[in-house]
Amino acid sequence: MAPPSAIEVLPATDTSTFTIPDRLTIRHIAKRRAASGKLIAGVAAAADVGAFKGRTHHVHKPLAKRWDHRLTDEAKTRGGSSLKEAAKFLKQPGLISLGGGLPSSEYFPIEEMSFEVPNLNSATGERHAVLSVGKHDMAHGTSDYDLATALQYGQGHGSAQLLRFLVEHTELVHNPPYSDWSCTMTVGSTSAFDMAIRMFAKPGDWIISEEYTFPAMVETAAPMGVRMDEGGMLADSLDEVLRTWDEQARGGKKPVLLYTVPTGQNPTGSTQSLQRRKEIYAVAQKHDLYILEDEPYYFLQMQPYTGPNAPDVPPPASHEDFLLSLVPSYLSLDVDGRVMRMDSFSKVIAPGTRVGWITASEQICKRYSVHADLSTQSPSGVSQMMLFKILEEQWGHGGFLDWLLHIRMEYTARRNVILDACEQFLPKDVVSWKAPKAGMFLWLCVAWEKHPDYLSKTLVEIEDELFHANMRHGTLLMKGSWFCPDKEVDTGKMFFRATYAAAPLDQIREAVRRFGESLREAFGLVTLADSGA
Amino acid sequence: MAPPSAIEVLPATDTSTFTIPDRLTIRHIAKRRAASGKLIAGVAAAADVGAFKGRTHHVHKPLAKRWDHRLTDEAKTRGGSSLKEAAKFLKQPGLISLGGGLPSSEYFPIEEMSFEVPNLNSATGERHAVLSVGKHDMAHGTSDYDLATALQYGQGHGSAQLLRFLVEHTELVHNPPYSDWSCTMTVGSTSAFDMAIRMFAKPGDWIISEEYTFPAMVETAAPMGVRMDEGGMLADSLDEVLRTWDEQARGGKKPVLLYTVPTGQNPTGSTQSLQRRKEIYAVAQKHDLYILEDEPYYFLQMQPYTGPNAPDVPPPASHEDFLLSLVPSYLSLDVDGRVMRMDSFSKVIAPGTRVGWITASEQICKRYSVHADLSTQSPSGVSQMMLFKILEEQWGHGGFLDWLLHIRMEYTARRNVILDACEQFLPKDVVSWKAPKAGMFLWLCVAWEKHPDYLSKTLVEIEDELFHANMRHGTLLMKGSWFCPDKEVDTGKMFFRATYAAAPLDQIREAVRRFGESLREAFGLVTLADSGA
Repeated sequence: MAPPSAIEVLPATDTSTFTIPDRLTIRHIAKRRAASGKLIAGVAAAADVGAFKGRTHHVHKPLAKRWDHRLTDEAKTRGGSSLKEAAKFLKQPGLISLGGGLPSSEYFPIEEMSFEVPNLNSATGERHAVLSVGKHDMAHGTSDYDLATALQYGQGHGSAQLLRFLVEHTELVHNPPYSDWSCTMTVGSTSAFDMAIRMFAKPGDWIISEEYTFPAMVETAAPMGVRMDEGGMLADSLDEVLRTWDEQARGGKKPVLLYTVPTGQNPTGSTQSLQRRKEIYAVAQKHDLYILEDEPYYFLQMQPYTGPNAPDVPPPASHEDFLLSLVPSYLSLDVDGRVMRMDSFSKVIAPGTRVGWITASEQICKRYSVHADLSTQSPSGVSQMMLFKILEEQWGHGGFLDWLLHIRMEYTARRNVILDACEQFLPKDVVSWKAPKAGMFLWLCVAWEKHPDYLSKTLVEIEDELFHANMRHGTLLMKGSWFCPDKEVDTGKMFFRATYAAAPLDQIREAVRRFGESLREAFGLVTLADSGA
Repeated sequence: MAPPSAIEVLPATDTSTFTIPDRLTIRHIAKRRAASGKLIAGVAAAADVGAFKGRTHHVHKPLAKRWDHRLTDEAKTRGGSSLKEAAKFLKQPGLISLGGGLPSSEYFPIEEMSFEVPNLNSATGERHAVLSVGKHDMAHGTSDYDLATALQYGQGHGSAQLLRFLVEHTELVHNPPYSDWSCTMTVGSTSAFDMAIRMFAKPGDWIISEEYTFPAMVETAAPMGVRMDEGGMLADSLDEVLRTWDEQARGGKKPVLLYTVPTGQNPTGSTQSLQRRKEIYAVAQKHDLYILEDEPYYFLQMQPYTGPNAPDVPPPASHEDFLLSLVPSYLSLDVDGRVMRMDSFSKVIAPGTRVGWITASEQICKRYSVHADLSTQSPSGVSQMMLFKILEEQWGHGGFLDWLLHIRMEYTARRNVILDACEQFLPKDVVSWKAPKAGMFLWLCVAWEKHPDYLSKTLVEIEDELFHANMRHGTLLMKGSWFCPDKEVDTGKMFFRATYAAAPLDQIREAVRRFGESLREAFGLVTLADSGA
């Protein structure tokens, strides 16, 4: 299988040489929690993120760089909500406030809420647990979070109750190597990207991305006059693009923003190795790029693919092994604080939560949450409550890792089904692929130069014909051209994107069989039935 | 009590001459629903809003005007999400899709969700009802909406299931007088305003607002280079500002956007009468303004205030009387489709839902939801499910109106408590007010020209001293100057904003008593205790 594009993945991910001193463990978090006492965070409380982080772990870490030279005027001048500032006066004992315009919780017509969730560590053997929350659990001392708080107005960074868990999880998994990192919640990574563009890019700017990328991001940026370019996620290629940037020819100045999906990239399914990430980070330092690391698929990293007839690789044996099995993030390499990482619950809990979070330097997180206060505000309190009950009160950090491991094994099984089906049903003369290490997508490269109409039709015409031929055979795959950031660039290659995330396993097999038939027919090859296979 | 500002409310709201032909009733909706059959709307289904509206009610209505000349380049060029477009192919029977990157609902770790809510129309006398939803209720035929759908990705306009209710409610209450109106959900009105500014305003533009307005809106607009000006919500004053607009002096072109909170305005508590609304709409037509109608307090319209010693006015006797008691909205007068109305659940259900909706012409709603697809996406599915269970499945339209009437009577009682306390405790020599007809706020005008330091200090200095004096007396009121859209304009008047929405009734009384003491002390008046009152 030939490398499909410039963003080919390096052969192996070598994590053995990668060690972080004083790596935080779940035990450390439990100890710190016990020492810090009960979390007190009432209505619309500002969170002290520093208190959620491991003080002993960052004493020898440097401060993040300042990004004033990269922020737009919009981001720099946004002063925040003056009325929320007035909240600081509320601490005076005995004060009666007729200030803030918050409705009384007695008019919230929801007295109690319950969620039935998988019981991951049941002592009693119960497969499900029912988690309940009342309106005034905090006053009753039965929980750190209740409906009177979750259903009220909140801060742009989200509730302190859920944010604490996210900060701890981030430190557990990524342990950023600078001291003043912070987290703030988002209403999802699409919104986070939209807000990041408004923070960092002016109309006419270019953003560097992979050769093929998630079109929603291009479509989000383009109407603001911001264009996305493939810099090639080969570090040399990225450096080359930036070194030789011709402002005149490009009609815009040299890019200062790099947008990347390093793990299980959409659409190519590729995963950058640690070595690749280090090289790209070095190029970003050289050209002073700010990096937007979009990682919805980070925990969809899978077990190695062993082929149709070999035994599966056993799952990681412990939480530590599991965390060590993950390719380190840009955030974990980010000595400068030049990364804004976007995390999402969409692929590991549910997209409908519309809750995610970013991790970046305090300066950037502060700018982000000030903007959120004046636009998206908090994520839904109903969603935050659901996540809090599951993650914080039911599963804990260990249970969440168990769940992520469960998801990993499920996606491994799904990926293996589609790869086995491809081996069995696809004509390898005209289609090639690489086993994805992470994510939801298989990127199928079609050798269109072997198509009977190669000399008389364009790539886009033949791609469209194949798309409709697939539909006639009863299977839908996405066109690769839909993922080109710059529609005017001719990559010369043809791809289709298949996802193994959603359909039942037998239907995935059947869809691949139909795709194989469709290709054989279009390319005039012998059908599997004819060949007796 | 002197009129506090240019946005003084006209003496009486005369709705007797205001009739809408063919006004929709709850009975009409029930009939239409029965005729249209079961709502089928699966994962991320696009909603057919037209099907939710009363066809017999708009045959003689005109089409909305087009707003191409008002939309920004950003709004006009936003093409929408190409991958969501691909969803149209999914209707082919027997098709297996490996297309959309949606995770399987088997990995959503929530099997069931329940909400305990007030039972408004109980036959059995139960005061609460428990509403439950499972993952696959739609497949089982037990509901039109389930967790597998609500927790999945959705459309920018929100789920068809909840949107149908909102469209019907909007027609019931406002019955817009043009035919191609539509609704689309928001993640709250602050976000809707932020998105509207990006749709309609360019950097350097001015927006016309009330003389005092909600600062978050000013703070949202300002970093985009958009300034807000008080046009005075007197129609004559608005016309004057626009007729005499001096681009040179103002450093920007004549405003084309009007932002207004017509009912229970924040901070002044004022409510524009129907006559005032008609006059302002006529000015908007004359100058071709587009109107952003922000109405979080619309259903906090209260019973008339009768004073401390007179009997209360009985509540509206029927749903029809209740709806007729409401001042008609700009939307209900909007023959041109020049209004984008923002509705919110924050004051009548709970702010933490982060769900609201806009009503505007199809052109504008389409631009809005395309933008949402690429930024905020849907509101939280968890919130949407909660609202659907309460509004659609438990209360219905009648029950929701009952709830809104309950809220109306509660706010009436709260407002009466603060007004009675003001009558009793405040020194009328130096403070005056008007009884609010709607909303959460009492706007207290302080005659600072009677302050001992009037000649030696500025308004802002004395306002700040009074603010801190109030704090020393144990009560927090908001400074009026925090609500000036243009900090450079000296209104010459001093105000404090008090809310009666949140504190317990006895504390509201006590806070007003303290404020009275604080004022008497500052102005060197006889105290209530000294005077024997």
